[in-house]
Formats: sequence, C-alpha cells, structure tokens
Amino acid sequence: MEQDQTPSEKPGHPPAQAILHELQTAKNSAAHLLPKLQSIKESNPRLMLLDVGAGSGTISVSFAKLIPSGHVTSINLSPNILPRARAVAEMAGVKNIEFQPVSVYKLPFADETFDITFCHQVLVHIGTPWDALREMLRVTKRGGIVAAREGDYETECVWPKLPELCNFHKLMAGFMSAGGGTPTAGRQLLSWALKVGVERSQITLGYSTSSYNTPSDRKTCCRFQFSTLLLVAAIMALMAVFSLAQGLCDQLRGGSLREKALKFGLGTKNDFEEMAKAWEEWAKRDDASLAMLHGEILVQK
Amino acid sequence: MEQDQTPSEKPGHPPAQAILHELQTAKNSAAHLLPKLQSIKESNPRLMLLDVGAGSGTISVSFAKLIPSGHVTSINLSPNILPRARAVAEMAGVKNIEFQPVSVYKLPFADETFDITFCHQVLVHIGTPWDALREMLRVTKRGGIVAAREGDYETECVWPKLPELCNFHKLMAGFMSAGGGTPTAGRQLLSWALKVGVERSQITLGYSTSSYNTPSDRKTCCRFQFSTLLLVAAIMALMAVFSLAQGLCDQLRGGSLREKALKFGLGTKNDFEEMAKAWEEWAKRDDASLAMLHGEILVQK
Repeated sequence: MEQDQTPSEKPGHPPAQAILHELQTAKNSAAHLLPKLQSIKESNPRLMLLDVGAGSGTISVSFAKLIPSGHVTSINLSPNILPRARAVAEMAGVKNIEFQPVSVYKLPFADETFDITFCHQVLVHIGTPWDALREMLRVTKRGGIVAAREGDYETECVWPKLPELCNFHKLMAGFMSAGGGTPTAGRQLLSWALKVGVERSQITLGYSTSSYNTPSDRKTCCRFQFSTLLLVAAIMALMAVFSLAQGLCDQLRGGSLREKALKFGLGTKNDFEEMAKAWEEWAKRDDASLAMLHGEILVQK
Repeated sequence: MEQDQTPSEKPGHPPAQAILHELQTAKNSAAHLLPKLQSIKESNPRLMLLDVGAGSGTISVSFAKLIPSGHVTSINLSPNILPRARAVAEMAGVKNIEFQPVSVYKLPFADETFDITFCHQVLVHIGTPWDALREMLRVTKRGGIVAAREGDYETECVWPKLPELCNFHKLMAGFMSAGGGTPTAGRQLLSWALKVGVERSQITLGYSTSSYNTPSDRKTCCRFQFSTLLLVAAIMALMAVFSLAQGLCDQLRGGSLREKALKFGLGTKNDFEEMAKAWEEWAKRDDASLAMLHGEILVQK
C-alpha cells in the first residue's frame, strides 16, 4: 500500500496512549545512548541533537535539559502533535529546542549536521526503516552517533495469559504488519544498519525492557487498551482528566484503529469487546504483568 | 511424573552450557538485588546469604566477594557440580562460602536464618516452584529479602528467524515442560509469590534481558546449542579447552537431553541435525542476535 510507505510515528494512537508516551524521557527511553551523549557533551557542550519522531515531545525536552548549551531539533511527520510538544517544552522552561513537521525519509538538513541522531519507536511503524536509517546517518557528523530503540512485539509477555489477551497481542502485531510496520523491529535493527552499509564493528546492539506491573501501571495500560477499542466517551474523559487538548488530535486516530482492523479482517466487533473485558479483568488482578523487549543500537559514524 | 517434582537446577546441561553459566556473576544475574544487598550490608556487614542452585558457583562466589564480612551458603540438589563450585571459590581466594548438596524443597536450615535468599534460573526448571519459594521465605529473617531471577522462554527472540531456530525454540520449551518445568516462569514469579501468601505490597517485580549479539557471544552460544545436540567429541574438546574436568559430570546430562527429547517425541534425529546446522549458519552471520526476557522479583519479608 502506497500510504504505508509514509512514516507516521504515532499511527492510530489514541489520547490514552499519548499519556503513556508522555511518561517517556531520555532516561527511560534512551538509556543506552546517555553515556555516549555525556562523553560527546564533555568534548563539545554545544552539540546538536536530532530527535526523530517528536510525539508529545517529552523525550526531546529531556534531551534538551541534558544538553543546556547544545540544541535539540525534534521532528514529526504529522504537524498535529507539535503544538502539544511545544507546550511540553514551554512548561519545562526549555528554550534550546525546535520542533519541525518533517519526514524522516527526506530530512531537510545538510550532510553531517548533527552530533547525535536518535529515534524511539519510529522504525517499527514504517515501511522501509533502512531508508530512514540511511537519512539519519547522512545528517550525522563523522564521529557522531546514530541511536535507535524499537520494540519487538513478538516478545510481548503477559500474565495471566487470558486467551483474549493473546488474541489482542496477535491483533496488534497483525495491525502493525498490515500498516506496513515490522512487529519484530527490535531484533532487526542490526540487520537494517548493516543493510545501509554500516560495518558490524561500528554497531553496538543491546536489549532493554518495558513493563507494566504495579497497580497504577496496569490501570493506565488498561485505559489505553480499552480506549484503543473505541470508547469515544472514555477518550474525551481522558482528554479532560489529562488536559491533553488540541495537540492530541493526531492521536485521535485511535478511533480509526478499530475501523482499520475490521477492514483488514483482523477481528470482529465482538472479538474487540471480549478483549476489552479481558483487559479490565487483567487490570484488577494482583498477579497481572505485561512486559516487552526493545532492541537498541548505537552506530558510531 | 514423580521425578519431575524433584528440583534439578541444571537439568541436562552439557559442559558447553556450563561455560555460559560460568560467565554469570551477581552483577549480571542479580542486578535487581544489589542495591538492597548493599543497604542490608551497611546495617549488618556480617549478613548471611543463601544462594539456591549453586551450579558452578560463579554467582555465589561473586556474592561472597561483595560481602567480605558476611557469609554465603550455596546449595545444589546434585552434589556432582559442587567440586567445580568449590574450585571456583578457591581460585577466587574466597573463604566466606560453603557449598552443600541440598534440595530447595527441604532446606536444612532453621526458620529465619538468612538475611538474603536468592535463586537464579532454578524455579523455571522445577515442578512446584511455589513450594521452593515457601521454603526460601521460611529460612529468611523478618526484614530480609527473597530474590529470584528466572527466564521466560516464550520471549526468546532470534534473528535471522531461520525456521530451524524457531523449531529449536519450541523444542526447548517443550523439553522444559515435559521435564516438569515452566517455560514462562519469568512472567509467573509474581503469581507464585502471591500463591504462598506474600502480600502484593511486599513484592517488587521487574524484567531484564540476556542476549548474545557480538561475534564472540554467538560462537559461544553456537557451541552450546551444537553440543546440546550431542557431539561428544566437541564436548570433550570443550572440556579440554576450558578444563572443566570432573566437576562437570553433572552437566554431561547434555547427552541425555537429546535422548529424552526423542523419547518425549519432541523431534527426530534429522530435526536435531537441521537445528545444529542452522545454529552454525546463524553464528556466521553479522546480523545474528538472540535475546530473552527474565522476570525478577524481590520479596521484602
């Protein structure tokens, strides 16, 4: 599908997932990059960092705080989320940052502009992630770093293993594939970097986890899953509760996730209702847990 | 099966896997416990630590080094590996440690003996892991910690996804189940602790990863997988190379893994040969990667 070749960092994500995204910072989402960032900063405090896939801006803003004498350029394909990202930066009192609506496939920057180029949960969603990596490498200085962290949805690990939650897991992986993404992105990062001509010796590969285990974690997760399944009233309530406001219009594609899943034949309305009930049940249980592996690469240019 | 209710910390592990085990230390296998260990040590330098499933002793010995004024008791159901563990302790010059051939189901220690009780990749292999946890809790002091780290084999994440490697993944999970173990132990740790009466508020659950990505990692891993598939000559060569000697007799159950897998109907000789060839192929590739999630709990008694 032609449109699936277009990168969209947050395809179909409803506001409640945006809330989860807003919990993301450089510390919890780019931990593998931080020691390198620190050493680059020591030799060059005025370093330039590009964050691909701004989303609500929380990771970009936390990068900007880490490099007060440097500068962060944060891009997102869709412009709709950028007012929210700018508001996040303003609330944090961060000035050394700019947001631009830009495709990772066609970065409007000269070769070797940035000291560090980073993306988080972007390559997993797009059709030709190696082309994105090639562009990221192009705009990165020699001696600089390209870093990525991407989920591997086949490793999603849920307890209790309610059948509907396993079905939901398949639905999400199927939806991602049908939309042109790669559910096993995490384990393929290395292969994509090699594909664009990087030497193996330039690449460091590792893995980390994300998980939802505590009662508050689980409720947030359940809200997300539930609203994914199109409860507009709940979405609106969440918007009120969390004051996500206008910038979350882009995330309201959540409504379209279900429509698209039906269109792709990935499940029935009844299936989705059963999954929603299972997530509600899950969130009530003391033994509930959800975890996933993420692949992480650092490429030394 | 009656015998499957007996805990065996290293069932069917051949010498080459023992080599992997010997790369394990408290730092890489009990990272979630170390901050708590440090704080207990600060208030009580003479703390007592029980390590369940000594194996070759490298984790136990690294614990002993971390608490030079404390004491480590390291147990293993089979006595056959203990000479190797004692040799590891001796080579490290560690004196504050003792090794005992003991079942985790019947610990010969009084109630509330230890400040910290730990196990690593033990509960995943045994029939009633909650009974093991109950015993571990019994021998731990009030105010002390029970900690566990266990793999979740369903999250095993391999690239390239050669069909034979996926078959191997199923074989190992099937073999573990057939032997009375729980391939999804990692995600069930919390439920097992709750089952023996621990309150949710006493438990911290997290996840970490292990992976094999670098060329030297991969070769080691391939040696393991390959020798798992019964190449006695290779096993003997490895024994020579790594001087694993007599203490590894217990690990020579590796030969029986294949026999048991055939007996359980988990594959044919031809299947195993194809898997071995696929692991050889995998180890040669620059884009090869293997990772897995591990569940980790801390129980505050």
